[in-house]
Amino acid sequence: MKERPPLDRAERAQMAMMLEVCAYPKPGNVDRCHDYSDTRLEHFLASTILVRPVFEAAERTGGRVGSLIKEAVMLTNGHAGGNTHFGAFILLIPLILGGDIEGAQRIVAGTDVQDAIEFYAAFGLTRVRVIENDDLDVNDPGSIATIREQGMTLADIMAYSAPRDMVAREWTNGFALTRRCADLLHAHGHGREAIVRAFLNLLASEPDTFIVKKHGAEAAERTMRCASEVLHGRRDLHAFDTECIRDGINPGSIADITIAGIYVALGEGWRWDC
Amino acid sequence: MKERPPLDRAERAQMAMMLEVCAYPKPGNVDRCHDYSDTRLEHFLASTILVRPVFEAAERTGGRVGSLIKEAVMLTNGHAGGNTHFGAFILLIPLILGGDIEGAQRIVAGTDVQDAIEFYAAFGLTRVRVIENDDLDVNDPGSIATIREQGMTLADIMAYSAPRDMVAREWTNGFALTRRCADLLHAHGHGREAIVRAFLNLLASEPDTFIVKKHGAEAAERTMRCASEVLHGRRDLHAFDTECIRDGINPGSIADITIAGIYVALGEGWRWDC
Repeated sequence: MKERPPLDRAERAQMAMMLEVCAYPKPGNVDRCHDYSDTRLEHFLASTILVRPVFEAAERTGGRVGSLIKEAVMLTNGHAGGNTHFGAFILLIPLILGGDIEGAQRIVAGTDVQDAIEFYAAFGLTRVRVIENDDLDVNDPGSIATIREQGMTLADIMAYSAPRDMVAREWTNGFALTRRCADLLHAHGHGREAIVRAFLNLLASEPDTFIVKKHGAEAAERTMRCASEVLHGRRDLHAFDTECIRDGINPGSIADITIAGIYVALGEGWRWDC
Repeated sequence: MKERPPLDRAERAQMAMMLEVCAYPKPGNVDRCHDYSDTRLEHFLASTILVRPVFEAAERTGGRVGSLIKEAVMLTNGHAGGNTHFGAFILLIPLILGGDIEGAQRIVAGTDVQDAIEFYAAFGLTRVRVIENDDLDVNDPGSIATIREQGMTLADIMAYSAPRDMVAREWTNGFALTRRCADLLHAHGHGREAIVRAFLNLLASEPDTFIVKKHGAEAAERTMRCASEVLHGRRDLHAFDTECIRDGINPGSIADITIAGIYVALGEGWRWDC
C-alpha cells in the first residue's frame, strides 16, 4: 500500500490550528485542560474542521485575501463559541496563498481596496475587540466610505492597525514573529512540549496586544514578566496558568501567531508527532 | 453576510470523530484528559482532519466501501499513534455513502468480493487486534484466496466476524447500537455531557468486544458492572476512569459506535454546541 502523501498547505494550516489548541498548559488560553464558559475546546476544533473548504480553495485556485478571510469567518462563525480564529486566518490565508513567508509577503503587497472592504465585512461579524474612538471603526459604515475615498488597501489597513495589533503588525514586518515562532519550534525539538516552550518564549518577550486591548498595557507587561519567571524556573507554570484563567488574561494574539509559526515550521520539516 | 450552510455528511462524520474524543471522562479511553503513551489526543484529532478527502469523495462521487476504508486507513496511518479510527471508518463509510442508517444498510447489502479484498488490504496495515487461529487471519495471504474461492462479500466477512466483534455486528443488525446511541444522545440533551452519558449507557449494557479480545470476557463483564454502578451513583466516574486507564481497559469498540451514533444524531438535529 502506498504511503500517505505529504500534508498539503490546507492540511498544514488545519494541523497548526489543532496542535496549538491542544498544547498545554498555555497560560490563560483555552487549551486541552481549560475552557472558558462561552468558548470551549470543541469550538476551536470545530473551526479547524469547518474552515477546510476556504483553505482548500486558497491553495488550489487562489483567490483574494479579503474575501477568503470573510469566507473563513463565515464558515466558522456559526457556533456559540464566537469566532475563535479570526487573527489566525489573517495570518494563515496569505501563508496558504503564498506557500511560505516569502510568498505571503508578495500576497500582502498585492492586496487592494476591495480586499480591505471584504475584510471589514468579515470583521464586523466577529466579536473581536475594537479600540474605541478609532477613525476606522468596523461598526461604523462610514469606515467603508473612508477606505474607498482614501484608496486604502488591506495592507494599508493592517499598517494602520499595526501599532496596536501584533497580528496586523506581522503583515508590515515580514511576518517577523511568525518566523521567530517557527525558529523557536525548531530549536525546542518536536511535538507538544516544543509548542508550549515557543509560546512561553513569545509571551515573555512580546506584550500581547489582545491583553493590552482588554486589560491595558500594565497587565500585558505583567504577563511578560511572569512568563519570563516561568522560563527561568522562578514561577510555577501551572500556578501562572490558573492565575491567568482566573483574571481572564488570555494571550489570544500570541496564540494566533503560534498557529502561523506551527504552519511554517511544519512546512520546514518540524514534526508534531513524537 | 450569508449564514454558513448546514454541515455536509463528511463534516458531520469529522465532527463526530472530534466530539467523541473530546468528551470526558470516558472511562479507559483517550480523551481530552488522558493519553496513552503511544496514542495521544493529537493522533485522534489528526485522523479527524486528514481523513477528509476520503469522506468527501464518498459523499460527492460515491465509490466502493472496501477501497474507501482502505484509503481512509492509508491517509490516517502515517503517524506514530497507529490507526486510531479503523472501527469508526467501518461504520462511517457506509453511513456517508448511504446518508443515514437506512442508506447504509443498502450500501452494506451491495458489497462484493472486491470490497472484501480491499478491506483485507486495509486491515493488514492496522495494528488492530486479531483473534488467533482464525480461518480468515488478515496476516495470512491465504485468506484472500479463501475469500475469492468462497465468493465472500464484505458483508459476509462482517457476518463472519459479528459474533466476536460488535463493530462488524452493526453491519448485520441494521446498525442497532448506532441507532441506540443516537437515541440516547437525543434523550440526554445536547453537547458534551450527553455524549458521556450515552457512552456510559452503552458501556453498562454491552460487553465491549475490543476489551474481550484484549483482556477476556470477564474483564468486559466487570467493566459493564462498573459502568452500571456509575450510572446508579454507586461508583465514582473519575475513579472508575483512573482504574480503567491503569489496567489498560479501553472500550475502543463502544467508542467507534459512539462516533457513528453522533454522526446519525447530528443528521437528526442533535446539537453539539450548547
